[in-house]
Amino acid sequence: MDDGSGQRRVGRPRDASVDEAILVATADLLVEVGFTGLTVDAVAARAGVGKATIYRRWEGKEQLVLDALTASRLHPEVPDTGSLRSDLLAYYLPLTEADAQAGAIRLMPALAAQAALDEDLAERLRAFVSDRRTPVAEVIERARARGEVDPAMDVELAIDLLTGPIMYRLYFSGSPVDPATVETLVDRVVRAIGPGA
Amino acid sequence: MDDGSGQRRVGRPRDASVDEAILVATADLLVEVGFTGLTVDAVAARAGVGKATIYRRWEGKEQLVLDALTASRLHPEVPDTGSLRSDLLAYYLPLTEADAQAGAIRLMPALAAQAALDEDLAERLRAFVSDRRTPVAEVIERARARGEVDPAMDVELAIDLLTGPIMYRLYFSGSPVDPATVETLVDRVVRAIGPGA
Repeated sequence: MDDGSGQRRVGRPRDASVDEAILVATADLLVEVGFTGLTVDAVAARAGVGKATIYRRWEGKEQLVLDALTASRLHPEVPDTGSLRSDLLAYYLPLTEADAQAGAIRLMPALAAQAALDEDLAERLRAFVSDRRTPVAEVIERARARGEVDPAMDVELAIDLLTGPIMYRLYFSGSPVDPATVETLVDRVVRAIGPGA
Repeated sequence: MDDGSGQRRVGRPRDASVDEAILVATADLLVEVGFTGLTVDAVAARAGVGKATIYRRWEGKEQLVLDALTASRLHPEVPDTGSLRSDLLAYYLPLTEADAQAGAIRLMPALAAQAALDEDLAERLRAFVSDRRTPVAEVIERARARGEVDPAMDVELAIDLLTGPIMYRLYFSGSPVDPATVETLVDRVVRAIGPGA
C-alpha cells in the first residue's frame, strides 16, 4: 500500500526509531558521497538495519533521499524581526555556510537530473521545493501587510528572485555565495519588490 | 595529446565535417533521451561513424556533451536595441520556447550532478556557463554607459538576478517560464539594478 508519501506501509506497525535511524544515515551519507555515490546497501549498514527493512519502507533511493531531506530541516524557523530586509537575511545567511552548500551542491542537481526522467520523482521534488518556499512566502506577505512590498508583486516570483541566484551560483556558475553576496542580493530584491515607483 | 578543449588530437588531420556530424548527433540525442540516456554508441550510430572515431576525439560523454552545447548556440546574438529592457527581453524571451526548455531541463542538472563529483568537468561547466553570460554582461555594461544601471551594481549579480530565477523554475520548482513571467522578471530587475534611490 502506498500512502502517497512514497513510503510503503505493509504488515507490522512502523518503528519510528528505525525510520529515523535510516533517514539520519541517508542524510549523513549524502553529504559524504553525494547522491550518485549513495547506495541502499551503505544506508542499511550505517543505520544498522537490513536492506529489506529499507525496501519495505521506501520504493527506492530517490524517495528515501527526499524523505531524508524533508526530515533534516535545512532551513531555520521563519524569522519575524519586523523588517523585510532583516527577515530575509535571517533566512538566507545560513545558506552561506560551507556544510549547507556542500550538501546542496551534491544533492539537488542529482535529484533534478533524475526528475527529468521520472515524472513521479519530479512531482515529489516540486512538492519538496514548494515546502521550502513557504517560510519566505510568509515573510514577504507579512512585509506586504506592513507596506514594504508592492501590492502587485507576485510572491512566487519574489521568492525566485532571492532563491534563484543563490541556487544558480551554487549549482552552475560556481560563483561565491558568501554573506556579502547575500546582503547585496537581499538589498537589490527589497528594492525590486518594494512599493511601486 | 590534449589541447585543453577536452578533445584529443592524435595522428591524422581532423576532418571537420566528421566533428560536426558527431556534435549535431549529440545535440539531437540529448533532447530526445537526455544526458543520462545518451550513449557514445548511439551518437556513433546517429552520426554514421565508428565508436573509436569518437573516442579518438573526446575523452568521454561529458566532454562531448559540453562541446555539443558550445557548438549549438542556444542563445541569439547580443541584442543592441538602445534600451536595457528591450535588450534583456530579446535575450531572455527565446528561453520561453518549449524546445529550449526541454533540452535544458534534461541536460543542465545532469551535467551539474556529474560536475559535483568531477572537478575537471566542473571547471568546464563553469567555463561554459561563463561563456553564456558574456552577452548579458555586454548588454548591462552598455546600459550602464547610458546611465540606465547603478554604477555600483555588480554585473555578475545582475546577471544572476535574471538567469537564476529562470533556471530555478526550469530545473527545480517546475513553475512556468512563459513570456509574461520573463517580462515581469525583466521589469523587476531593471528596477533593482537601476540608478540608485
